[in-house]
Amino acid sequence: MDYKNVTAHAKANVYFDGKVVSHGITMEDGEKKSFGVIFPGSYHFGTEAAERMDVIDGSCTVVLDGSDEKASYRAGEHFNIAANSGFTIEVAEGICQYVCNYID
Amino acid sequence: MDYKNVTAHAKANVYFDGKVVSHGITMEDGEKKSFGVIFPGSYHFGTEAAERMDVIDGSCTVVLDGSDEKASYRAGEHFNIAANSGFTIEVAEGICQYVCNYID
Repeated sequence: MDYKNVTAHAKANVYFDGKVVSHGITMEDGEKKSFGVIFPGSYHFGTEAAERMDVIDGSCTVVLDGSDEKASYRAGEHFNIAANSGFTIEVAEGICQYVCNYID
Repeated sequence: MDYKNVTAHAKANVYFDGKVVSHGITMEDGEKKSFGVIFPGSYHFGTEAAERMDVIDGSCTVVLDGSDEKASYRAGEHFNIAANSGFTIEVAEGICQYVCNYID
């Protein structure tokens, strides 16, 4: 999956001691995305903007804040998180790769 | 460090079970670069094209193939590797981040 005419940021975002690492881009229209890898474990992220998370490799399970429902996603699937909310994402094995789209 | 008007590739390059992870970009003129993170350990990479490695965070020690000399590099420093050669890069602690520039 390629994104053309973007500004790419060389410095990675490192979360949870490197268990989650992403590189960000800014699209021509100012929209921001990040490409990330998640190593096995369970991690909670808060959102400011709403996010659409596209899983592009591997798989994960997700529980949205305020929900009891655990859903599984694999490459080609996506889930959405509301603004000012959060989610817990768990990777059981291997590496899960994603594209995070920040939605205004 | 930002790179403008590039094509960014969402899928990461994963080496050594994820101990080295990078995301690639292609510049307007076709030149390729990758932004990577290296977790602690020692890794050998071969080169096809010549490479210039810019360390942008953390530090590493490097031994070029065919050399006995171990050199240390930290953020702001770089080293070059010849085409069709290789190097061993070691990170003692923390995460070392780099920009790899592939040189024609």
